Amino acid sequence: MLKYQQIANEIQQDIEKNDLPQGTKLPVLETLMSQYKTSKSTVIKALSLLERKGLVYQVRGSGIFVRRHNRKGYISFSNQGFSDELSGFDITAKVLELDIQKPSAEVAFNLKIDPEDDVYYVKRIRYINGQTLCLEESYYNKAIVTYLNNEIATGSIFDYISNGLGAKIGFSDMYVHIQKLDENEAQHLGLQTGDPKLFVETIFYLNNGLPFDFSRISYNYEQSQFFFQSTGYSL
Amino acid sequence: MLKYQQIANEIQQDIEKNDLPQGTKLPVLETLMSQYKTSKSTVIKALSLLERKGLVYQVRGSGIFVRRHNRKGYISFSNQGFSDELSGFDITAKVLELDIQKPSAEVAFNLKIDPEDDVYYVKRIRYINGQTLCLEESYYNKAIVTYLNNEIATGSIFDYISNGLGAKIGFSDMYVHIQKLDENEAQHLGLQTGDPKLFVETIFYLNNGLPFDFSRISYNYEQSQFFFQSTGYSL
Repeated sequence: MLKYQQIANEIQQDIEKNDLPQGTKLPVLETLMSQYKTSKSTVIKALSLLERKGLVYQVRGSGIFVRRHNRKGYISFSNQGFSDELSGFDITAKVLELDIQKPSAEVAFNLKIDPEDDVYYVKRIRYINGQTLCLEESYYNKAIVTYLNNEIATGSIFDYISNGLGAKIGFSDMYVHIQKLDENEAQHLGLQTGDPKLFVETIFYLNNGLPFDFSRISYNYEQSQFFFQSTGYSL
Repeated sequence: MLKYQQIANEIQQDIEKNDLPQGTKLPVLETLMSQYKTSKSTVIKALSLLERKGLVYQVRGSGIFVRRHNRKGYISFSNQGFSDELSGFDITAKVLELDIQKPSAEVAFNLKIDPEDDVYYVKRIRYINGQTLCLEESYYNKAIVTYLNNEIATGSIFDYISNGLGAKIGFSDMYVHIQKLDENEAQHLGLQTGDPKLFVETIFYLNNGLPFDFSRISYNYEQSQFFFQSTGYSL
């Protein structure tokens, strides 16, 4: 982690620890520089990162202010995707299927691989606070995600990819649809056929631009509500 | 518009004009500096803005690459919110109601105003390519949005607020739910009672942090699909 990321983390922790409400003015740059014992450019980079993360906003000529939203129980749909945003919830998973397959044309296209290459296919139900959150089907490029097993897939596969395999997750493209559950999906989620679902297809890339995971997720409408922030580009 | 924003726009236009596919490597910094006749720091700020907008990604030690997604017909759910993302579509609106009201407790809370203050209430149906896109109810703080009429509400209210009133739109908080349409909503959208909807509540803020619009939108599931990018923070 770079210096400015550390400082950004510390400022974020200070905001949370002191439970500062939206609109609270942060100390001026000079005070932050001495408080965190760092240079002006590092403080500015840290604040810029916090602005992009939706944790502060800048009012030109006036200062930097805390940004916080006021509802609980929403899954944050942040710039960084869902992966670490579920950490505030009790998330578990049940693996329904896990095997090595040849990709369909669609999966091969999205993962930019050959139909003869191998993928790990994982189908699982994820639970939030004991309720079904979603039914997930994921296809991992086996050349990148070289090994998976049931135990790993019962936890956070992304934590394993980052920490176990040491791969650096970069960015993602999400395609979001509102649809109706079919009979099979409804059964898995404990809902009725025809009930609403949020259906999300995502391509996840490593930070070198290679796609490693194509996933299709159907969310239980009764359990999933999402929070999404847009940010300005002032800093 | 600042210099680096201009350069970012020009790079973006070059990418689009030349239809560069995802993964195309951009010229090195020195080439961009001479091509756009600007300093290194301005080029870096421009590239950083483009990264935050999801238009490029950086691979450390390797270069800057074009980021482009490969599906058409999705409404982009970008960092900057929906407002200018509908520009690629044919959007019209029919105003069902427009008047000045006293806010409910909930509206007053979200707009941080007093129950005795005035709000403009606008209820309208928006159409995309001639189909119902959504049913929208919006509450504007009248102290900020001082005037509205039917003609304005038939077009883009945000364009009017930015260009007509000269207010600077800053950021937003969106709360996203998946629900079922009630009878009245279904009728307005030309769907069946119980059909799925995406229900989005948004608080929009000026760039000075003041909330000016609280809106509740029910999207027609048959017409609305959304694209959402997450970005890294490398630049």
